[in-house]
Amino acid sequence: MPYTAFFSERMGRALRNPGLYKFAVLVAVSGGGVVAYADARPVAAEYPQAAPKKKLVVLGTGWAGTSFLKNLDTSLYDVRVVSPRNYFAFTPLLPSITCGAVEPRSIVEPIRNIMRKKTGPVKFSEAECYKIDPKSKKIHCRSNIGTNLDGNGEFELDYDYLVVALGARSNTFNTPGVPEHCHFLKEIEDAQRIRRSVMNCFEKASLPNLSEEVRKKNLHFVVVGGGPTGVEFAAELHDFVQDDLSKLYPDIKDLVKISLIEAGDRLLTMFDKRITQFAEEKFKRDGIDVKTHFKVVKVSDKAITMTNSATGEVNVPYGMVVWSTGIGTRPIMMDLMNQIGQANRRVLATDEWLRVLNCENVYALGDCATITQRKVMEDISAIFKVADKNNSGTLTVKEIKNVLDDIIERYPQVALYLKTKQLKDFSDLLKVSEGDAVKESLELDIERFKKALAQVDSQVKMLPATAQVAAQEGEYLARCFNRMEICEEHPEGPLRMRGTGRHRFKPFRYRHFGQFAPLGGEQTAAQLPYDWISIGHSSQWLWYSVYASKQVSWRTRFLVVSDWMRRFVYGRDSSCI
Amino acid sequence: MPYTAFFSERMGRALRNPGLYKFAVLVAVSGGGVVAYADARPVAAEYPQAAPKKKLVVLGTGWAGTSFLKNLDTSLYDVRVVSPRNYFAFTPLLPSITCGAVEPRSIVEPIRNIMRKKTGPVKFSEAECYKIDPKSKKIHCRSNIGTNLDGNGEFELDYDYLVVALGARSNTFNTPGVPEHCHFLKEIEDAQRIRRSVMNCFEKASLPNLSEEVRKKNLHFVVVGGGPTGVEFAAELHDFVQDDLSKLYPDIKDLVKISLIEAGDRLLTMFDKRITQFAEEKFKRDGIDVKTHFKVVKVSDKAITMTNSATGEVNVPYGMVVWSTGIGTRPIMMDLMNQIGQANRRVLATDEWLRVLNCENVYALGDCATITQRKVMEDISAIFKVADKNNSGTLTVKEIKNVLDDIIERYPQVALYLKTKQLKDFSDLLKVSEGDAVKESLELDIERFKKALAQVDSQVKMLPATAQVAAQEGEYLARCFNRMEICEEHPEGPLRMRGTGRHRFKPFRYRHFGQFAPLGGEQTAAQLPYDWISIGHSSQWLWYSVYASKQVSWRTRFLVVSDWMRRFVYGRDSSCI
Repeated sequence: MPYTAFFSERMGRALRNPGLYKFAVLVAVSGGGVVAYADARPVAAEYPQAAPKKKLVVLGTGWAGTSFLKNLDTSLYDVRVVSPRNYFAFTPLLPSITCGAVEPRSIVEPIRNIMRKKTGPVKFSEAECYKIDPKSKKIHCRSNIGTNLDGNGEFELDYDYLVVALGARSNTFNTPGVPEHCHFLKEIEDAQRIRRSVMNCFEKASLPNLSEEVRKKNLHFVVVGGGPTGVEFAAELHDFVQDDLSKLYPDIKDLVKISLIEAGDRLLTMFDKRITQFAEEKFKRDGIDVKTHFKVVKVSDKAITMTNSATGEVNVPYGMVVWSTGIGTRPIMMDLMNQIGQANRRVLATDEWLRVLNCENVYALGDCATITQRKVMEDISAIFKVADKNNSGTLTVKEIKNVLDDIIERYPQVALYLKTKQLKDFSDLLKVSEGDAVKESLELDIERFKKALAQVDSQVKMLPATAQVAAQEGEYLARCFNRMEICEEHPEGPLRMRGTGRHRFKPFRYRHFGQFAPLGGEQTAAQLPYDWISIGHSSQWLWYSVYASKQVSWRTRFLVVSDWMRRFVYGRDSSCI
Repeated sequence: MPYTAFFSERMGRALRNPGLYKFAVLVAVSGGGVVAYADARPVAAEYPQAAPKKKLVVLGTGWAGTSFLKNLDTSLYDVRVVSPRNYFAFTPLLPSITCGAVEPRSIVEPIRNIMRKKTGPVKFSEAECYKIDPKSKKIHCRSNIGTNLDGNGEFELDYDYLVVALGARSNTFNTPGVPEHCHFLKEIEDAQRIRRSVMNCFEKASLPNLSEEVRKKNLHFVVVGGGPTGVEFAAELHDFVQDDLSKLYPDIKDLVKISLIEAGDRLLTMFDKRITQFAEEKFKRDGIDVKTHFKVVKVSDKAITMTNSATGEVNVPYGMVVWSTGIGTRPIMMDLMNQIGQANRRVLATDEWLRVLNCENVYALGDCATITQRKVMEDISAIFKVADKNNSGTLTVKEIKNVLDDIIERYPQVALYLKTKQLKDFSDLLKVSEGDAVKESLELDIERFKKALAQVDSQVKMLPATAQVAAQEGEYLARCFNRMEICEEHPEGPLRMRGTGRHRFKPFRYRHFGQFAPLGGEQTAAQLPYDWISIGHSSQWLWYSVYASKQVSWRTRFLVVSDWMRRFVYGRDSSCI
């Protein structure tokens, strides 16, 4: 593929003649098919252009940022990426890294490698953005690599469009001692530290001349947070101890204890109750001590303090704590939210097109943002006005049907409400509010229209902070950017309710493909669309195939699969590196 | 294999009857062959023993220590291993790790995993020995894992036999600034740090708003020391830049510079001059700047200062320095040498049986020790007396021939001298000193005997500090320990010259199998026995096969080979983790 690109580029450059250039492309196509067409574009950029490309700055290379970049036609913009990590990490496999089932390098792919295959050049800077200034359309960055750089490594960038995909940090709920003594599990480095720490606990407990109490303390692993990450880590650790470490540390294997602490009343709250029950029973059989209704109030260097209405405050000595209780806000996001009148929010609010509210040309996606779905009730008069084409002050069923698709597209809660209530269409909704007397000739005034739609906003839902949502948002936003000019002229979105004409793009719509919760022992719980639940070994194989297929490159796919094979044959490595 | 072992052990324990026990072994053998026999030994240990096993403490898990442990019959001793690393690392592949050709985990194997297959139990402690006390036969250790351990993690161990295989550290020749600003390349962690540092230099040089001068500075990689490690690292780095990074960092690839600084007059001094010449020419073609006759005198955070008789002192700004100029002494070894009257030496002196001089029951091997070969001239009167069986004051040729094998075994320099001078046997040597008048009836007095052997000690050679020597020493010493009791009764060594009877064991003899110097671009120089030299792609394949076959386990073999395959197909990973 690079050869074809190189060939067509060189040919095009040498010929400098549109006619001959087309011939060169033709020649190249015969050798490289579609590839040559895609790669030929940069050559076209050599012709003098009327307007310079708009500056598009992307912050972050996580799921949202990378998905955006992968789908973006980079030849249309002057693209610049700033991220403290020069790679994309397949984070759903982080718990597998903590115990060596998968190696860290197997789930990362350098951003430059991903970008190299794009049609236009992308400039990447490994730096941390510490301030966004939407008024002057600037971002301020700082290189976080050492101090050996002359100057302080700070720089500024201007933007025309800014895509914020900075993710979130771990939430400590301001519990004292957590940042100092607990491990988080959000980055590759976290997972590597946890792995080293697990091995250190075993080595510490193996030292001579220790009391059994001290050995037990060092082998007490505490996981705080019963969400999917915490549960998966506890299961991975249990398997690591059971499958591998018990053979290497036979003298102390019976002293190991894993505790899983959850403040709520059950594990895996976002999953179906059947999955929770299965997980809790499996953990009980495995000897993992699940403590629900326990709230951690303090962590010191020696013990973790928690409270429970029955037991009061208890102090438990530990060897290692992993803190995984959800996500919190990064300082830079707080600063931005203060600037744009979104203070006191947890994440940035965007509209349904991922545009940050009150902040022109800034887009936000992934864990750092959430979509604020407009309520039907807020816009009800506007909707009524748009639907009432003849300005009669009443709506006929026909008038409603004419704009119904636009309404449903703009306010997906309407469709959701119909589905939840098992209503076929809008007429059914009217039947509920109007009784059975719905005819074609029915005319609704605004009050009766309001009454019909009164309940639909109850279906407005926040999207979860998952990789799946972030990736879909990135893909969606890239498509919008790719069609910016076309859609300016030919808008494809729904009718504007509080304005004229149509929206440029269709609003973002999330499709849920299901979620996994690996429970250890080659068993996984899967909650698939339409509430289809599958638990056990077959789901584990589904998990393997989905996670292998979702890898960002063939390289990581090869590596992850060979890591799994290695683990099957040789087990996990227990070296302290 | 574990099943068979488990089976025979359980059967044996259940039956508790020697006759039935043999039957059990027989049954097991039919299922598991040799395995069952080997695994049956621990059961025998359950019978009460007359004397408790002797305490054997091994310090270090590098090439020497691991090779010793692998070959030791651990059922004969109460074995305890102390090392700050709980794994063995295949160090010849360290330069491959620095640029991601091979992953760190692929070349390490946990010591406990290696020891699990042994016949007797081995206790391992991950700790650093900081003091050896040979008078009270104790060692003092400190756990180097965190501070979360109650107490300070210090402990003492008694020993009956102590095997010191602590290796060496990098030698800075007290050059100021080296420990603070340079990378070494002795441990896995060093190689990981170098890899991160190389990538950081590229990321730093890619930041916006930098002058070309600063970019060039950040992309100047300096390697100090033209030995095999330095040369291999420079070659690896060049390949990494050429094959992989130049595609990902096209704007700055031409600013990269690699300098290789050597204080002597040529690279690879321990290799044949043809290899040096080839390497220097290849590096010149590759654009690697080889600076011989340059001595580094200072390293600051910004520049490296070196002197040369022609240029005087020069200051060169750099992005990264790797220091690889040979090995120095660890503090604990200096302390031990002071205690036993070996002060001011660079490494511990041992005799030809690897016993530390002036230090009972302490053995030393690998990079921390060197064998002090007894000189013939020092023992000449004793040799004469032993050979002169009839105490006549003169030696006949027959008398000499009777003890010649013992002399050659005890003083290998004699054989070496004959070989170097192309003499067939001892009679030839006499011919040289006596003229052609050597007859069977010739009788030598001590002076003429001395004259004949006067030059042989010129052939006494120090063994190089290589993995090959360390591994052979470990294997040799393990065999000695395995046969300690048998050889006490039936000594197998040469005649004692300054005593009576025979030495217990044959002295250690090193067999050189050759040495590699990888030069990059899939080319390797190999210096094989009998001065056979091979340079090029074929040697690279020899290198691959030798290094794959020498791996400590099938697991690491599989991993190293799959890493090589991965690199062939997908190149090296450039993620900053």
